[in-house]
Amino acid sequence: MSASDPIPPSGRFPAGRLAFPHRNLTAIAQLERHEILYLLEQAEQWVQLNRQSAKHTDLLSGLTIINAFFENSTRTLLSFEIAGKRLGADVVNMHAATSSVKKGETLIDTAITLNAMRADAIVIRHGSSGATGLIADMVDCPVLNAGDGSHEHPTQALLDALTLRHALRERGEAADDFTGLKVVICGDILHSRVARSNILCLTALGAIVRVCAPPALMPAGIEATGVEVFDRFDAALDGADAVMMLRLQSERMSGQFIPSAREYRHLYGLTMERLALARPDALVMHPGPMNRGVEIDSEVADMAGRSLITRQVEMGVAIRMACLDILTRETRGLEGWA
Amino acid sequence: MSASDPIPPSGRFPAGRLAFPHRNLTAIAQLERHEILYLLEQAEQWVQLNRQSAKHTDLLSGLTIINAFFENSTRTLLSFEIAGKRLGADVVNMHAATSSVKKGETLIDTAITLNAMRADAIVIRHGSSGATGLIADMVDCPVLNAGDGSHEHPTQALLDALTLRHALRERGEAADDFTGLKVVICGDILHSRVARSNILCLTALGAIVRVCAPPALMPAGIEATGVEVFDRFDAALDGADAVMMLRLQSERMSGQFIPSAREYRHLYGLTMERLALARPDALVMHPGPMNRGVEIDSEVADMAGRSLITRQVEMGVAIRMACLDILTRETRGLEGWA
Amino acid sequence: MSASDPIPPSGRFPAGRLAFPHRNLTAIAQLERHEILYLLEQAEQWVQLNRQSAKHTDLLSGLTIINAFFENSTRTLLSFEIAGKRLGADVVNMHAATSSVKKGETLIDTAITLNAMRADAIVIRHGSSGATGLIADMVDCPVLNAGDGSHEHPTQALLDALTLRHALRERGEAADDFTGLKVVICGDILHSRVARSNILCLTALGAIVRVCAPPALMPAGIEATGVEVFDRFDAALDGADAVMMLRLQSERMSGQFIPSAREYRHLYGLTMERLALARPDALVMHPGPMNRGVEIDSEVADMAGRSLITRQVEMGVAIRMACLDILTRETRGLEGWA
Repeated sequence: MSASDPIPPSGRFPAGRLAFPHRNLTAIAQLERHEILYLLEQAEQWVQLNRQSAKHTDLLSGLTIINAFFENSTRTLLSFEIAGKRLGADVVNMHAATSSVKKGETLIDTAITLNAMRADAIVIRHGSSGATGLIADMVDCPVLNAGDGSHEHPTQALLDALTLRHALRERGEAADDFTGLKVVICGDILHSRVARSNILCLTALGAIVRVCAPPALMPAGIEATGVEVFDRFDAALDGADAVMMLRLQSERMSGQFIPSAREYRHLYGLTMERLALARPDALVMHPGPMNRGVEIDSEVADMAGRSLITRQVEMGVAIRMACLDILTRETRGLEGWA
Repeated sequence: MSASDPIPPSGRFPAGRLAFPHRNLTAIAQLERHEILYLLEQAEQWVQLNRQSAKHTDLLSGLTIINAFFENSTRTLLSFEIAGKRLGADVVNMHAATSSVKKGETLIDTAITLNAMRADAIVIRHGSSGATGLIADMVDCPVLNAGDGSHEHPTQALLDALTLRHALRERGEAADDFTGLKVVICGDILHSRVARSNILCLTALGAIVRVCAPPALMPAGIEATGVEVFDRFDAALDGADAVMMLRLQSERMSGQFIPSAREYRHLYGLTMERLALARPDALVMHPGPMNRGVEIDSEVADMAGRSLITRQVEMGVAIRMACLDILTRETRGLEGWA
Repeated sequence: MSASDPIPPSGRFPAGRLAFPHRNLTAIAQLERHEILYLLEQAEQWVQLNRQSAKHTDLLSGLTIINAFFENSTRTLLSFEIAGKRLGADVVNMHAATSSVKKGETLIDTAITLNAMRADAIVIRHGSSGATGLIADMVDCPVLNAGDGSHEHPTQALLDALTLRHALRERGEAADDFTGLKVVICGDILHSRVARSNILCLTALGAIVRVCAPPALMPAGIEATGVEVFDRFDAALDGADAVMMLRLQSERMSGQFIPSAREYRHLYGLTMERLALARPDALVMHPGPMNRGVEIDSEVADMAGRSLITRQVEMGVAIRMACLDILTRETRGLEGWA
């Protein structure tokens, strides 16, 4: 089973890891621990650059980056577009969600078309699990997964790790990796590519990952990935160092379990009361956009020094700059990563 | 009452002016007369540049400008995008009107997100009055209002003033300001942010502003802003130096007054016959897009030497370049404006 | 009758050619044979550049190119956008298909607006035949037709010629032009701007063009353009050197003839069996996007060494770079073409 395969109907996670094909970034599952750490390390220079007023380099000057978004995503598209432009590349967006491009066989033809236009990197977001891997197999240039179905969203997991490491270091905690750190991920674990990528990334970096979801939204066999499984949120929070809330996405839930916003908040919403069950200085994360008052209360989301939600957005641009830089090095006649 | 507040239900205009927070351009109401004149003066260099074949500088090189348009606007978006690119900035557009981004609390989260991506200027267009001011309060970078609800559309008023001044100077009239100039604004004054901004701008520059609208579309208390109020267009036109027609926007009119296009033209359309009531060389303006044959006849709109409608579009790019330049000076380590 | 006129209701092709107004590229009908050859020749440098990793020049630095697409077209827009950006221009897209811009008189106002923003080249795609010519008459800068109604799609014909010439040269065939080459164009000839432009381009270069369509989709009087007319595809293919398949566009067919996909494939689909009727090494082309299994079978579309479909996409960017370069030379103070 290749990492680009869709999640099987049972929702069972693949247990193993594949050797990483360095050319692409389609899944955290394909990254080794040292590769993740290298990506985080490399992103630091872009965090610094982005904090300056002149935040532009000509590093990727002359390269063409195509953002092919088959699924709408204002934030992620903006983040990749800014990343590419700040690196000096020629960036073009293909808004396939609103175009005549649909799926299945045509996806391959679209990939071939983008390739024939001599793209130097293609960023793909697609509603089908494995679509990115499929495209990566068809083209000559590096492919970056910006989220594919319920498979993976690797740059989200990387930016989350970068954000967490920054926050821990600011507290004076040595955080080369996350050994022993207790991180809770709460929400629709079954369908969430963010959850999947974060579980793989956090465990690779040594964290103790606790997942919490309504029973119908918890994938069978997820224990095999090394996580601790909870169905009661209060229990999951006990002594946690960080809490990652997932967005409630009613559109991805097919019948089985459709809680009202109020019920959901009651059982799985991160309120101030609940957060008090975690470590006193526990950090709060959310990939956005938030349903305030549903999976997270505003007081929690806006808590100075504890909520990292805005920081996650900032780190997103930096991590995408790092990925675009590293993946195009071979094209630019440089060595890739070790 | 802050300048970013929506127009109160009564349609009453605020009488006073607020001190101008130099960082943003959210309202003409926040500009002093000398600041308006400085903006117009500064725009001249961009008028000249844009008339050359190579019309690009690297003045804003390295800066990131985000055009966040929550309301569709082909022309204004294009104008700001061209302005930003000609100044050498990295420009990205957020088409929020077609995205999942909606309003209310989410607007604030969107603003925070754009800010976290380290934008150096954010241009906002939004359907709600005051939305731009709200966002300006949430972010670290300058915010430019590209039209918010029925509040203001400051760059439109500035480009109109620039256009008018150019035309007057070409006639040999000294036009440092508009002292004594009689300008008629005709149309839906109540809902028009263009009217509101132009009234503020023109009166600040000394013009005698006459407003004309169907009674239901005239804001109560508008006399307090120093304008002369007319309900008969013919009377308003008597001896006028310039006539600004507003676009008839049926979508903004809720029930009270829905004239047919034919009735509207009969009462408030600018025809050749009507224009003859103004000064013999009276100038004609329209912010576009026009409903030809409704609020303005084609013969009037296309009158060489009298109609400034095309010139307004040209001046729009120049004035937006001036605004982007001035508002980002502090970011670039330069002095702002005096 | 000007070349920008719509196809008359009879579907009759205009017989004559007009002198070419060098400023614009609205129709192949306006190009002389030596001009077509010059365009193909000039495109070679861009084919080479695009195959390098750093594929960017500053040739059009400082110029503003507006892609005004009144009809959705993911591929063609992407191709023009990449072409403009690789040449160093400031490129902006106007997605008029989704904007408030409609047609008729407003089209002219839109053209005037784009012109007033001081565009240095305007690329137009529009659903109405002749729209591009209409706009070209209204503006000061060069206009490129990216497809207008059922009139013409000149850059498609040019890229097809470039692709064909490349393929023939790789086989060692001297292909300065296409003298004696038998090319079959099959599909909806009546409504296809691609067919129309290709017929004009291929015959200008000396090819023997055979057209094949269901009777209801064949324009009356097309023989006058010098093509051979077929209604049976098998007969048209006999001994052909190249076969260009057209996309089946059900949306353009009004009532007269609506075949099922299966019927269409049976009568006019390019299958392996049918292709065997052509020359043994006959080349296969399709402008994309393909309806695989309808007008073309996948085995044919993917045939290595014979199918040029991917190559067509590559050549598209190069030919558009050549057109943008040549048409803006006067603006840049250089000589145009001879």
